[in-house]
Amino acid sequence: MADDRPTLEIVGRVRSPLTDAATAPKQGDEGAPEAWLVFEDGVLEALDGIRPGDDVLVLTWLDRARRDVLSVHPRDDASRPRQGVFATRSRHRPNPIGLHRVRIVAVEGARARVRDLEALNGTPIVDVKPVLSGDAAER
Amino acid sequence: MADDRPTLEIVGRVRSPLTDAATAPKQGDEGAPEAWLVFEDGVLEALDGIRPGDDVLVLTWLDRARRDVLSVHPRDDASRPRQGVFATRSRHRPNPIGLHRVRIVAVEGARARVRDLEALNGTPIVDVKPVLSGDAAER
Repeated sequence: MADDRPTLEIVGRVRSPLTDAATAPKQGDEGAPEAWLVFEDGVLEALDGIRPGDDVLVLTWLDRARRDVLSVHPRDDASRPRQGVFATRSRHRPNPIGLHRVRIVAVEGARARVRDLEALNGTPIVDVKPVLSGDAAER
Repeated sequence: MADDRPTLEIVGRVRSPLTDAATAPKQGDEGAPEAWLVFEDGVLEALDGIRPGDDVLVLTWLDRARRDVLSVHPRDDASRPRQGVFATRSRHRPNPIGLHRVRIVAVEGARARVRDLEALNGTPIVDVKPVLSGDAAER
């Protein structure tokens, strides 16, 4: 792969009581606690329009994941056959971008309080997007 | 922002009849054509388990987007008030990661044919994930 590799800017960090991948929920709707999204002051303008009650997609860089894994046992369950990582939500994958649907609870300057975030404390944030009906619609 | 910036691997490219951002659909459910996802041979194993009929999320690097834009008029409509890019799906944003929900139509080796992809021809692919009910569920 060529050296025109894109480089990500870290626009914020997760502040969460979760510190251990082994015990953290695998998905946000599996008992994840509330957490803070703490953004860099330089991207404050990008948050304009995000309000409590909004559902957003937070994209993170899962910096504790492995990038050299191409297949896994889903949900770390060795009784399940191996699948390619693109057919699973394993955090291990060539580009470990986390995709988390969360509910905004509060916005205070460059910080947002969210519900249902399973990302570990300190995880870099790379993007936030509103949820569209098309993300989920049956077709 | 520090020089510990993560670097993305390009794991494939979009092959699509769409070549012009000005006329392409803004979202996949707004009339996007079928397209091919052409993966690098080195990630073939990661595709194992992806089958026709599956709905997946394709993450791309929107290499023709601007990274210095923090607020926009939603959908390029100047009559709508500016919003922070994190409250919109504008392709312009600090990390222009595209998130596309598509339906797999066919898989042929390291290529997958998909429906409803609005990404332009040549767009780098960085990840593929299965759709989870939690991505969309009302809570």
